[in-house]
Amino acid sequence: MTAPTLRPGGRSARVQESIHKAVRELLEEQDRASVTVPQIAARAGVTPSTIYRRWGDLSALLADVVLARMQPETESANTGSLRGDVCAWAEQYLDEMSSAPGRHMLRDVQSSLKPSYCATIIGGQLQAILDRYPDQPRPSVDRLINLVAAPIVFRILFSEAPLQVEELHQLIEIALSQ
Amino acid sequence: MTAPTLRPGGRSARVQESIHKAVRELLEEQDRASVTVPQIAARAGVTPSTIYRRWGDLSALLADVVLARMQPETESANTGSLRGDVCAWAEQYLDEMSSAPGRHMLRDVQSSLKPSYCATIIGGQLQAILDRYPDQPRPSVDRLINLVAAPIVFRILFSEAPLQVEELHQLIEIALSQ
Repeated sequence: MTAPTLRPGGRSARVQESIHKAVRELLEEQDRASVTVPQIAARAGVTPSTIYRRWGDLSALLADVVLARMQPETESANTGSLRGDVCAWAEQYLDEMSSAPGRHMLRDVQSSLKPSYCATIIGGQLQAILDRYPDQPRPSVDRLINLVAAPIVFRILFSEAPLQVEELHQLIEIALSQ
Repeated sequence: MTAPTLRPGGRSARVQESIHKAVRELLEEQDRASVTVPQIAARAGVTPSTIYRRWGDLSALLADVVLARMQPETESANTGSLRGDVCAWAEQYLDEMSSAPGRHMLRDVQSSLKPSYCATIIGGQLQAILDRYPDQPRPSVDRLINLVAAPIVFRILFSEAPLQVEELHQLIEIALSQ
């Protein structure tokens, strides 16, 4: 059997994947607050300094793992109408972000190297919805982000009570009215 | 001279004020990242454990100091029209939150014991503006928070580019149209 020739990029990608995998496994086995960098390093078969060199700190690594999971290819519900699809997306997003893992994610992402990846992911998901309805008046992705996603996140992070579903529907009406 | 009788509440308030004062002074003298709890404790004449017991960690204390400064009594510009007042408030808020101290504040507040105090402060400022125009159609404070404040903050925390002033004005038009 011939060992395949490996480029450095390939090795680096494999190291990253083994670190991500270690994080995902540890997060399933134990509480998030108790996961440490040396633990992850041991599980992934690297030294802690490999992790520190690449991510700076644990928070950035956790954020990276979460972001890698949040891929835009996850199709959101196709209800047959633009309004229905946006509602389904928004209700699911509100649910996910209000949960404990969602709140941690919002916190971790801010410490990550690319917090803007968050808006990129959301934008991709919303664009996929808009693309289903090319023949009707559609808001821009930015309008949906500003009027629907932003209030969901702001209220979770900085307010006493998260957005109520009824308020969310009003915001969607505003976003869809031209 | 007779020493005034002090209730425990009074002593506790004085301790808190001396700790807040120490933080404010240290933040003027040195970089935020280099301020430590033992330093603050030494300056305030308390033990570090007093600070840890009360705030849990440095981040929560810094947030508390920032929030104590952000008092709603700061009157925002009175331009003579509701639209003008909301624009003036929103442009100033966008400026402040986009600055380095503003971004730190948004981060610190989330680690504080009362992140919702943020929405309370903003709500108080916006209510004060609405109260100037009792005889005309006015949006609710919640509507202004969802449609104007939330996009400002979301875009700063999670997007590549902060809101542009033109986008901000469009959001204000939406919020003010009934």
